[in-house]
Amino acid sequence: MDKMSEEVKPESLSLCPLGTAAAPEPELLCIFGTGDLGRSLGLRLLQAGYRVVMSHVAAAQSAPLVLMCIQRDHYDFLETLAPQLKGKVLVDVSNNIKKNMYPEANAEYLQRLIPAAKVVKAFNTLSAWALQNGPSDANRQVFLCGDSKEAKQAVADMATKLGFTVLDRGSLSVARELEDFPLQLFPEWRLPLRVAVGLTAFFFFYVVLRDVIYAYVVQGKDISFRIMVSLANKVFPIVSLIMLALCYLPGVVAAFFQLYRGTKYKRFPNWLDRWMLCRKQLGLLALGFAFLHVMYTLIIPIRYYVRYRIAARTISDIRENRTSEFDSTSAWRTDSYYSVGILGFATYLLLGITSLPSVSNALSWREFNFIQSKLGYLTLLLCTLHTYLYGWNRFLYPSSYKWYTPSAYQLCLVLPSAVLVLKLLLLLPWVDRSLTRIRQGWERKTDPEEASTGLLLT
Amino acid sequence: MDKMSEEVKPESLSLCPLGTAAAPEPELLCIFGTGDLGRSLGLRLLQAGYRVVMSHVAAAQSAPLVLMCIQRDHYDFLETLAPQLKGKVLVDVSNNIKKNMYPEANAEYLQRLIPAAKVVKAFNTLSAWALQNGPSDANRQVFLCGDSKEAKQAVADMATKLGFTVLDRGSLSVARELEDFPLQLFPEWRLPLRVAVGLTAFFFFYVVLRDVIYAYVVQGKDISFRIMVSLANKVFPIVSLIMLALCYLPGVVAAFFQLYRGTKYKRFPNWLDRWMLCRKQLGLLALGFAFLHVMYTLIIPIRYYVRYRIAARTISDIRENRTSEFDSTSAWRTDSYYSVGILGFATYLLLGITSLPSVSNALSWREFNFIQSKLGYLTLLLCTLHTYLYGWNRFLYPSSYKWYTPSAYQLCLVLPSAVLVLKLLLLLPWVDRSLTRIRQGWERKTDPEEASTGLLLT
Amino acid sequence: MDKMSEEVKPESLSLCPLGTAAAPEPELLCIFGTGDLGRSLGLRLLQAGYRVVMSHVAAAQSAPLVLMCIQRDHYDFLETLAPQLKGKVLVDVSNNIKKNMYPEANAEYLQRLIPAAKVVKAFNTLSAWALQNGPSDANRQVFLCGDSKEAKQAVADMATKLGFTVLDRGSLSVARELEDFPLQLFPEWRLPLRVAVGLTAFFFFYVVLRDVIYAYVVQGKDISFRIMVSLANKVFPIVSLIMLALCYLPGVVAAFFQLYRGTKYKRFPNWLDRWMLCRKQLGLLALGFAFLHVMYTLIIPIRYYVRYRIAARTISDIRENRTSEFDSTSAWRTDSYYSVGILGFATYLLLGITSLPSVSNALSWREFNFIQSKLGYLTLLLCTLHTYLYGWNRFLYPSSYKWYTPSAYQLCLVLPSAVLVLKLLLLLPWVDRSLTRIRQGWERKTDPEEASTGLLLT
Repeated sequence: MDKMSEEVKPESLSLCPLGTAAAPEPELLCIFGTGDLGRSLGLRLLQAGYRVVMSHVAAAQSAPLVLMCIQRDHYDFLETLAPQLKGKVLVDVSNNIKKNMYPEANAEYLQRLIPAAKVVKAFNTLSAWALQNGPSDANRQVFLCGDSKEAKQAVADMATKLGFTVLDRGSLSVARELEDFPLQLFPEWRLPLRVAVGLTAFFFFYVVLRDVIYAYVVQGKDISFRIMVSLANKVFPIVSLIMLALCYLPGVVAAFFQLYRGTKYKRFPNWLDRWMLCRKQLGLLALGFAFLHVMYTLIIPIRYYVRYRIAARTISDIRENRTSEFDSTSAWRTDSYYSVGILGFATYLLLGITSLPSVSNALSWREFNFIQSKLGYLTLLLCTLHTYLYGWNRFLYPSSYKWYTPSAYQLCLVLPSAVLVLKLLLLLPWVDRSLTRIRQGWERKTDPEEASTGLLLT
Repeated sequence: MDKMSEEVKPESLSLCPLGTAAAPEPELLCIFGTGDLGRSLGLRLLQAGYRVVMSHVAAAQSAPLVLMCIQRDHYDFLETLAPQLKGKVLVDVSNNIKKNMYPEANAEYLQRLIPAAKVVKAFNTLSAWALQNGPSDANRQVFLCGDSKEAKQAVADMATKLGFTVLDRGSLSVARELEDFPLQLFPEWRLPLRVAVGLTAFFFFYVVLRDVIYAYVVQGKDISFRIMVSLANKVFPIVSLIMLALCYLPGVVAAFFQLYRGTKYKRFPNWLDRWMLCRKQLGLLALGFAFLHVMYTLIIPIRYYVRYRIAARTISDIRENRTSEFDSTSAWRTDSYYSVGILGFATYLLLGITSLPSVSNALSWREFNFIQSKLGYLTLLLCTLHTYLYGWNRFLYPSSYKWYTPSAYQLCLVLPSAVLVLKLLLLLPWVDRSLTRIRQGWERKTDPEEASTGLLLT
Repeated sequence: MDKMSEEVKPESLSLCPLGTAAAPEPELLCIFGTGDLGRSLGLRLLQAGYRVVMSHVAAAQSAPLVLMCIQRDHYDFLETLAPQLKGKVLVDVSNNIKKNMYPEANAEYLQRLIPAAKVVKAFNTLSAWALQNGPSDANRQVFLCGDSKEAKQAVADMATKLGFTVLDRGSLSVARELEDFPLQLFPEWRLPLRVAVGLTAFFFFYVVLRDVIYAYVVQGKDISFRIMVSLANKVFPIVSLIMLALCYLPGVVAAFFQLYRGTKYKRFPNWLDRWMLCRKQLGLLALGFAFLHVMYTLIIPIRYYVRYRIAARTISDIRENRTSEFDSTSAWRTDSYYSVGILGFATYLLLGITSLPSVSNALSWREFNFIQSKLGYLTLLLCTLHTYLYGWNRFLYPSSYKWYTPSAYQLCLVLPSAVLVLKLLLLLPWVDRSLTRIRQGWERKTDPEEASTGLLLT
């Protein structure tokens, strides 16, 4: 949008929508800058029935609204036009290539250069394509901000006429935020994604070592083909469960902080704040891994390897005239294991669905809290139970500890079990009572001076 | 938010945002009440660049906007401040602990106490956490209402500055609704949830009786392990199908009411109205049960019990030198059964997706109606057909009627079949014609007096 | 809403909400037209606390706001009332039975008849049911447009009082669009649906011919039972992959157009524009087919036919004392095939989720673009790879070419492979550089005259 070099040509170029001879005089707009964006916008406004002037000299005489489609670097020349632009609505649509390039927002800079104009920041969050072709998926909302209500109304009218939905974000001081918006690329997903990649890599190497390499070194067998599905299907549920636990751990830690400090008015350490703010992303990534686990599990019976093994087993049973007894305990255990897993996945999905913006907007805060907290812990409980049922009594057999290492599923149970135990502690009647009082604003008075300055300085 | 006891301290406490020496004078706000909420909000407003005064005496001289962070019980003392508060914007953020505690809304009570002020109800639907930390999932929208447009605009500006999205809900008479909003916990889900729990319990005991207890009593076999998956997977689809039928039954009943009465202007009985209003929730719960049914079905082949039985069957076939013939009819029937089930689940999912708020908002009313009605009946038809194909000719065998009771799947077919037959009746040309006329406003004139009073009194 | 014939009765009928004796005088509204809609709306407004007058004569003296619930055909009689309606707010709620019935929008026609009134178009996108019973799913938003801001505000206040959310769409010239909105039935889905039906029909007959009919004619076997699941599960993935390719093909074609023309300011041919505009719908339908493919695949192991074949194979292996060796390459290939398929489906789902309106609104344009483009091509790559792994070396065997025709999966690979190759070409450094320059507004100057007129005339 602002990468292209553009010259502001002095010649005025007045464009009129076609076939408007009989209609009443359409509104006149002025566009500064004949670069990519200026031309896109000009075309679109012509189609919407406006008259458009593309020059900065003509603007002074005619149009009450000027679209500034030039780069910030060329703003300084506008200072000479300040008298002509007095009282005009100037729409700043510019963006920067990276964050914090300049000490102040482009729109605020423009306002400073021409104090007598009414600057409105708008349209900069849209793609040039959307400006030319009208609203589409991520290009439906026009955010605007500015200090003049009338100016904002004028721009809002233009935007609705072009088919967009307008969201007024407040005064011009918000411009910086709007200018940063198009630059962001999932900032709140970075930390959770790194955690997910790290955990996946670690557990992948761990199971490759314990399964494939161990079998090759100790038993001389090549079972590397198991990497694609069997091992992947060990790693995915492990990462999913750990990340789900990581999603609920900060809440528990925060509660202990509050209990220890005896107040809720002290800010949490920074790392805890950052952690709390990415819980939703942690949870959604965990759901993604759970989904992969479900899919990898469901294709088990159509795998060549599985079919081969089952047939081989049946054949050897017959040849060696072996009869295996039906084991009712095994049936109970495995069926419970699957059942608990399915229920856990169902509540997991529910958590994911209620975090869709439109669903969470329709919930009251109490409802959202109920789902994310109660249902969240239920999910964690079910998934942890699912893993315990998977392990069952496997931990008793020495053969589980290849090269003296615990199984991957045992490792992954540590964190969720800890979170559940800590949460249980918090639910003990007297702990719960203290915590509720603290969260309602009560403070343990150790030193009144400290408490009151806490409010002022934090 | 209002559970804590708080005293309104008389000493004035003026707070200024840090590092604003050079900046222009920030706006001044006043907060009444130094409890939890008052302090949270004060901190947040300081961070947003406002100057904040925390006292009721100071307010009279200085701030044009006063945030009332005190409990309704303490409102009466405000009457003495009425002269100083004249013309001020008073923001009522209070909530109650339960519904209908007081004859009038808190905000209306406040307005009555200080008639010369401009009361705006706002922020009460947010959690204290959101007020301190800014918008998050269920805490993005600030609902506000009030009788003065300027006052609402001032509060809306403040809210947008804090990063929230503002929704103006109208005049102060809406305050009661806003005050009830944070108290609700899925009110429209209660009836459907009770129906679901009731049906699940009934059918669970029914299949336990006919399967597990019958086998134990009559055949002396313990097959209780089947409860976890096999029986659950009988109950889930049954409850799902019945609830789907319950979702479409009220519409059919309503149509017959209209046909019988010959008008659409008479109100339906209350029970029918309530039923109609929870169709969406019934449908979504039914979808949840269908999802569980799908998951429980897909894990069938990896179950220990199933693998054991298949292997045992193969082994006994060989040992007894039995040869089973491939039955093309069975192949057709079971494949059709699965196929119809999958298609039914797919249309079911589509119904669920289109009921997401953001999707249904993007549809025209005609489109939404098309999906929910046409696609809904198609889903009901496919799922009913799926169940008939499951049953096939099983109803012919006496062994299906253990203890002279019908199978659970036979019981569950009654309602959906009835709904489909009734719907077919409504689609008969002359019935359809009458109904369409009635729905377009035509009335069968039996007694004109009655008809017109009907309009006035219902 | 407008199908019924209705007469405008001359007698005035003043209705008052019940139990409002003590309350302050409620606002007075007038409704023109005593048809279906007029009565629904009247009832609802009474319930909301308004006083309602239902006549056109009375309106002249009393109500400042008149709801026009009459058909356009009866508008002309209103001309006689023009003096009495001067300065009133007239709310036009009418719709037409089909598009382009009249040269101008109903609301604009009304404004022309009574130029001194302030016409606002509103409520016409709601169902009569919603007007009587309040907001529900697809009936939550009231779109309105009009030239007078005060008039729009008055109507917006009324709508919020009735519980609706108001979206101001701009000036009265938007009325036509609002009047067309209730008439549309998935207009943007038609072309993609036709493509889907066409492809499904073609490939269905193709596989029936090559599998069922070939087996019947050449080998004399009846395998028609395979139609329900096996053949369906061949057609669904094929259609899904082709439609996914069709979703990304127009983007590639557009890029080549721009490279060839050396500018981005020339409009694409119409067919390409239309194609680009239905990519989202193509993609979502493709996702639907992929979902069906997944479900049909997962039920494979519980099918009667499959279980019979596996048992028969095991039994014959034993009887003929055959020993099949475990083939590690097969295990690698099939597991990779499933793995790649699952990952492809997961990214596919992610694409679908991010195209939900509320999710895409929460993304910046750059984020949306990243997902839809990068993740989209990754999905196409994974799904194409999945199909190649499915085919593997099958193409080498003459038996694959029944009646000298290629397999269906081979046919379906043509388009996605072509799209991927073309995309790779566009990623070559120097091609990419040219394209980026063109997209930033650079133009290859062949004839400056032509270039500048291009802007004016296209």
